[in-house]
Amino acid sequence: MKFPRSLETLLNELEYLPTVGPKTAARLAFHILEAPSSRVQALAQAIIDVKEKLQKCTRCGNLAEGELCEICRDGRRNEQTICVVANARDLMAMESSGEYKGLYHVLGGLISPLDGVGPEQLNLASLFNRVKNENVKELIIATNPTIQGEATALYIKKILKSGKEILITRLASGLPMGANLEYSDPLTLSRAICNRVPMH
Amino acid sequence: MKFPRSLETLLNELEYLPTVGPKTAARLAFHILEAPSSRVQALAQAIIDVKEKLQKCTRCGNLAEGELCEICRDGRRNEQTICVVANARDLMAMESSGEYKGLYHVLGGLISPLDGVGPEQLNLASLFNRVKNENVKELIIATNPTIQGEATALYIKKILKSGKEILITRLASGLPMGANLEYSDPLTLSRAICNRVPMH
Repeated sequence: MKFPRSLETLLNELEYLPTVGPKTAARLAFHILEAPSSRVQALAQAIIDVKEKLQKCTRCGNLAEGELCEICRDGRRNEQTICVVANARDLMAMESSGEYKGLYHVLGGLISPLDGVGPEQLNLASLFNRVKNENVKELIIATNPTIQGEATALYIKKILKSGKEILITRLASGLPMGANLEYSDPLTLSRAICNRVPMH
Repeated sequence: MKFPRSLETLLNELEYLPTVGPKTAARLAFHILEAPSSRVQALAQAIIDVKEKLQKCTRCGNLAEGELCEICRDGRRNEQTICVVANARDLMAMESSGEYKGLYHVLGGLISPLDGVGPEQLNLASLFNRVKNENVKELIIATNPTIQGEATALYIKKILKSGKEILITRLASGLPMGANLEYSDPLTLSRAICNRVPMH
């Protein structure tokens, strides 16, 4: 059928979004049609703003509205620890745990030769500069426990070398909280056994 | 944690949309961040346009960019048949079947006393006017086979009375295509038995 042109355009644009198929696009479009104008204007403005205002923090590569991101600007963070993450989404996941109080470094990806991503495509030079010039005592490598994440972690460790000057650590691998041994995969179980910790 | 303000705003606005929770909002927001500017501008513009340009067709109540909707403007539609639907989404579902070639009338809801919706809240007066003034031979009532849909269908039938002047029909109820008898609900099966049709 013929939709009105502006509706057709909106449906097409919505379908470019991830998780949005034709049915969800229709549902979203009709919601937008029925929502108050102020709400709709705010959504459209927010979409434009996020694209125009956000840039990369010149220090750590996180998303920032100015030169430095909120975390680099925050004087209360522990400047002796840097947590290395693949992207800003992983950084936000780390922050949501509330456990980590240090700084970050966002790589902008992971080493993945099959996808043509080598170390030189990543935000690594600036990491090595920070380790050299800032007073960093510990580097926590928080890349995913996947082939790409492990490769990236090993690459960084090979270049920097854990030692007296800097301690390089990796996030613990093991059973997720609430997991069921019966349904855990053998690799996770084998990691959990190897990395078992004494009970206090 | 503190997100950059513009990202925080976008996440909040996205969460007003149906089917979008915090995780989907984050996924959409990061997609928007990484998408080309032109695509993002187009999305924002489409959202504003759909709200500003669309209005109700003065004849049938469907969504329209001008005075009349695409269907009312289309000279090839059969003007002797009007299909009555609850809203524009149902109209689009009907159109997607490709089976119907007549005109529509969009009620803007269904009679539902519990929600405070009576016949006077619906686009019914204009339907009765059309039946009186246009050359309508058949009225297909395509409201949902639910309590509200049936009540609305009965109300329209009571007012207009099927007869020599106008034939009032209702969409067939029965087993959906591809259905499994074993898992069908008793009400649907009972309708399917009552409304059984001779095989040609």
